[in-house]
Amino acid sequence: MSKTVTITGAAGQIGYQLAFRIASGQLLGADETINLNLLEITPALDALKGVAMELEDCAFDTLGNIDISDDPNEAFKDTDYAFLVGAKPRGPGMERSDLLQENAKIFSAQGKAINENASRDIKVLVVGNPANTNALIAMSNAPDVDQNAFTAMMRLDHNRALAQLASKLDCHSSELSNMTIWGNHSTTQYPDINNLKLSGEPISARLDETWIKEEFIPRVQNRGGEIIKARGLSSAASAASAAIDHMRDWALGTKESNWVSMAIPSDGSYGISEGIIYSFPVTCQNGSYSIVQNLQINKFDKKCMEISERELIEEKEAIQHLL
Amino acid sequence: MSKTVTITGAAGQIGYQLAFRIASGQLLGADETINLNLLEITPALDALKGVAMELEDCAFDTLGNIDISDDPNEAFKDTDYAFLVGAKPRGPGMERSDLLQENAKIFSAQGKAINENASRDIKVLVVGNPANTNALIAMSNAPDVDQNAFTAMMRLDHNRALAQLASKLDCHSSELSNMTIWGNHSTTQYPDINNLKLSGEPISARLDETWIKEEFIPRVQNRGGEIIKARGLSSAASAASAAIDHMRDWALGTKESNWVSMAIPSDGSYGISEGIIYSFPVTCQNGSYSIVQNLQINKFDKKCMEISERELIEEKEAIQHLL
Repeated sequence: MSKTVTITGAAGQIGYQLAFRIASGQLLGADETINLNLLEITPALDALKGVAMELEDCAFDTLGNIDISDDPNEAFKDTDYAFLVGAKPRGPGMERSDLLQENAKIFSAQGKAINENASRDIKVLVVGNPANTNALIAMSNAPDVDQNAFTAMMRLDHNRALAQLASKLDCHSSELSNMTIWGNHSTTQYPDINNLKLSGEPISARLDETWIKEEFIPRVQNRGGEIIKARGLSSAASAASAAIDHMRDWALGTKESNWVSMAIPSDGSYGISEGIIYSFPVTCQNGSYSIVQNLQINKFDKKCMEISERELIEEKEAIQHLL
Repeated sequence: MSKTVTITGAAGQIGYQLAFRIASGQLLGADETINLNLLEITPALDALKGVAMELEDCAFDTLGNIDISDDPNEAFKDTDYAFLVGAKPRGPGMERSDLLQENAKIFSAQGKAINENASRDIKVLVVGNPANTNALIAMSNAPDVDQNAFTAMMRLDHNRALAQLASKLDCHSSELSNMTIWGNHSTTQYPDINNLKLSGEPISARLDETWIKEEFIPRVQNRGGEIIKARGLSSAASAASAAIDHMRDWALGTKESNWVSMAIPSDGSYGISEGIIYSFPVTCQNGSYSIVQNLQINKFDKKCMEISERELIEEKEAIQHLL
C-alpha cells in the first residue's frame, strides 16, 4: 500500500525539514510507502529540484515516487495527506489585512485544486500563516470534500507549552498530559493548564497563578518571536516536527487518557461561533477527531477564549468575499 | 538508559537536520533517551541557543538533556556517539593545502578533547570535509581511545550510488545490495558495482560498461556539485540522513546478506596502505564493523582504488606534522 503526501512550499525552511522526516517513515511508520508531491512557486522550482535530488540520494526504504510541480492541480492529484506550508510572509510596510488578502488568493486556489483532484479521504493541515483563516478559505473552496478534513496547526504551541511546563515542574514533557491551547495560532491563543496532569495526577494547583498569567501564557504566545530573535530565522525544524505530530496523531490516534490541540471547524462547542477554524482539545481514533467535551471553563478561561474567537471572526470578515 | 550524542557545527545546515532527527529517535530507536551535546564556534552560540530552544519545543519523548557549548572539553564529556560535522569550508583563493591545515587544527583539538573526556566506547563519525583526513587527525590525537572508533562518512556516496542504480534498473533502492564505495570522500572515490545484487540476484552483467564508466561513476563522484547547482546550497538533509544511517548501522548492525561503505582506519586489506582512513565494504554486528574480505578485484578496480589511496596519502603528508 502507498499514500500520497503533498507538501506546499516544499523548498522552504519548514518544507526542507518536513519532506525528509516524512519520507524517512516518521509520519505513517516503516511499513507504508510514501509518494511525495512537492509544490512550489515557479521561481523556486530549481531549488525544489535540488530537494527532490537529495530525497532520492537518501535511498529511504519508505519513499516511493517524488513529483515536483508549480501546478496545484498536479500537486493535489490523489492526495491523502496535505501539508499546506507555503504562504506569503508579511513584508515591510504590509498591513495585516494585505497579508490576509494575499494569502487568501493562494489558499482559495489550493482549496479548489484539492476539491477537484485529491482523495475524498484527504486530511489537510494548514501550517502557513495566518493558518486558521487560511484553512477556512481552503475549506470553503472545497465544497465536495468533508469540511472536517480542514485543520490548522496548533501543535507547535501545544508542544511549546508542554516544554515550558516540564521545565517549570522539573519533569519530562512526556510525563505531562491534558493541556489545551484554545483559539487562533497567534498571540491571542490561550494555553489552558486547568486540567494538566503529571504522570496522570492533577498538578495545576501546584503552579503559581502569577507565574501562569504573567510568565507562562505570554511566553507560549510569544515563543515564535523569541526563536526568531535567537536564530535570526523563524521556527522551522520545530514547526515541521509539530506538523508531523498533528498529522500522525490524527491518522493513527492519540494516546489513551490524553488529548492534543487542533484547530478545526468549530461546531459550536464551548460556545465558540461556528464558521471559524478554532483550536480545541481533541482525541483522535480511526482517522477522526472529536472535541473533548464538558471541561470546566471559568471566567478567566472564557474571557481568553473569546479574545481569540473575536480575532478569528475579524480575520474571517476581512476575507469574506473569498468564501 | 540514556546515551550522550555530540554534534559539532550543530547550528549549521547539516547540524540543524541531524539534531532533530536524532532527538526524535531515529538514531537509536524509541526506547533510548538521547542527551544532546551541541558544539559551535563562539560567534554561532546565539543561533545554537535558538536550535536548543526549538529542540525543547518539539517535546520529543526520546530527548533528555541538551547542552550547548563552544568548548570541546564540555561538548565531548561522556560522549557515546560523536558526529563531527563542523569544518572550515574552502573560501575564495584558498588552496587545498590551506584547507587541510585549517581543518587539521580543528580536528586535532577535538581529538584531544575526545581523548580526555569521552566515553571509552565512543563511536566517532567525521562528516566535515576533508572528512577522511580530518578523521585521521582526530584519531591520532586520541591515543587512549580505540583507533577503530574513528570513521569518516561515505554513506552519502553509497546512498547516492544506490539511488542512481535504482533509477537505471527501474527498481527501488531498497531492492539493491552489495555495492561498495572505495577510497576517499572526494571525486576520486570509486563506486564499485561488481557484486551488485537486485533482490539477491547478481545484476551487474545487465549494466552497460560504457554507462558505468562514463555516466554512473562520474555522476556519483560529482553529485555534490550537482546538488549545489540546483539548490544554491550544498547537500544538508541528505548528508544528515546518511550520517544517521552510518551510525545507526554501526551501533545496531547491518542487514543480513548486505554491507555498507564506511571510511575506517585501513588494516592493509585489499593492499590499501595502513595509516589512512579509507572506505571499505563493511558489515556491522554488536557495535563493531569488519571489512568484507575476498571480493574479486580486477585491473580497473585496482587502478581506481589506488588513485583514491594516493590522494589520501598526499593529504596525510600535508598535515603530517599534526599527527
